[in-house]
Amino acid sequence: MIENYLDLERGIMEHWNSKVVRKASDMRGFYLANDALEKMIEGGDPVIYEVYAVTHENEGELCYGVTVLHPGKVGDEFFMTKGHYHEKRDRGELYIGLRGRGLLLMQKDEEVQWYEMRRGTVIYVPPYWAHRSINTGTEDFVFLAIYPGDAGHDYGTIAEKGFAKIVVEKEGRVDIIKNPRY
Amino acid sequence: MIENYLDLERGIMEHWNSKVVRKASDMRGFYLANDALEKMIEGGDPVIYEVYAVTHENEGELCYGVTVLHPGKVGDEFFMTKGHYHEKRDRGELYIGLRGRGLLLMQKDEEVQWYEMRRGTVIYVPPYWAHRSINTGTEDFVFLAIYPGDAGHDYGTIAEKGFAKIVVEKEGRVDIIKNPRY
Repeated sequence: MIENYLDLERGIMEHWNSKVVRKASDMRGFYLANDALEKMIEGGDPVIYEVYAVTHENEGELCYGVTVLHPGKVGDEFFMTKGHYHEKRDRGELYIGLRGRGLLLMQKDEEVQWYEMRRGTVIYVPPYWAHRSINTGTEDFVFLAIYPGDAGHDYGTIAEKGFAKIVVEKEGRVDIIKNPRY
Repeated sequence: MIENYLDLERGIMEHWNSKVVRKASDMRGFYLANDALEKMIEGGDPVIYEVYAVTHENEGELCYGVTVLHPGKVGDEFFMTKGHYHEKRDRGELYIGLRGRGLLLMQKDEEVQWYEMRRGTVIYVPPYWAHRSINTGTEDFVFLAIYPGDAGHDYGTIAEKGFAKIVVEKEGRVDIIKNPRY
């Protein structure tokens, strides 16, 4: 697909060939508060985030997609994406904030970094860093991501151990704390 | 450089590590109207376009940059970028229009395609296609481009022959015509 249109105000893309919807039930094991998550699933299984992407699979090509990460919490933890390494670990990724506010949490081995994102924030995720987005606001957090066609997604490593840090609300503020399960 | 800020309204990037400025005198040989270009150079040698980029050179990494292509003409031809193939021909590129209006002209062997661009237009330049931007409006044409770190730029092939088509103003309208020098 050569031609497309991205509403830069609303973060809505006209065409895509890949749509991923992650509901609460797709996020089992990702949050500390299992009970709260199960309750949420019983209560209607809301969508946590959606990704609309145009993908190309070959080396040298580029994929791009818009993620709409809804606001909310599971227990004290803010809604977040699963997070992934690239299957090809040496592939980078570019993030551009379009709407709302959030964090981009990155991890390489035991090193953790995070960056605040809002409209216009550009974060370059260098090769070898796992990355996860977290909605720390009260509206949709929407961003554009561009990554190499052959990067691939490795969700398993994160699904197993999580990140070394989790992002919680504590006394009305955003707090980044040690993940007790890591 | 991991963190950056891009003003999505104005197309101004806070940080960059590469700035390219192409003046009229850098564009000798690219326009049909050599005399008009020389006159322009004598008259102050105006800037045709500027590129502000964050570059990474390794395979698997991504570069991104904002191009500000000013409005104007040399003879009947609209201001344009030099245009290039990627040194690694199988590298793609993503364009996102931010301001103004223009065309993205693409060529692979003898096949030519072009796409209108305005704010929000997304064009994926597939591998193997040379590409050039043309400002067909009366204001700056500003766009963001993302490309693989190891893509490289081959300007020579285009500098020699140009594209098979040129973009001119004819009776107040944008016209895409055969390049008589091709």
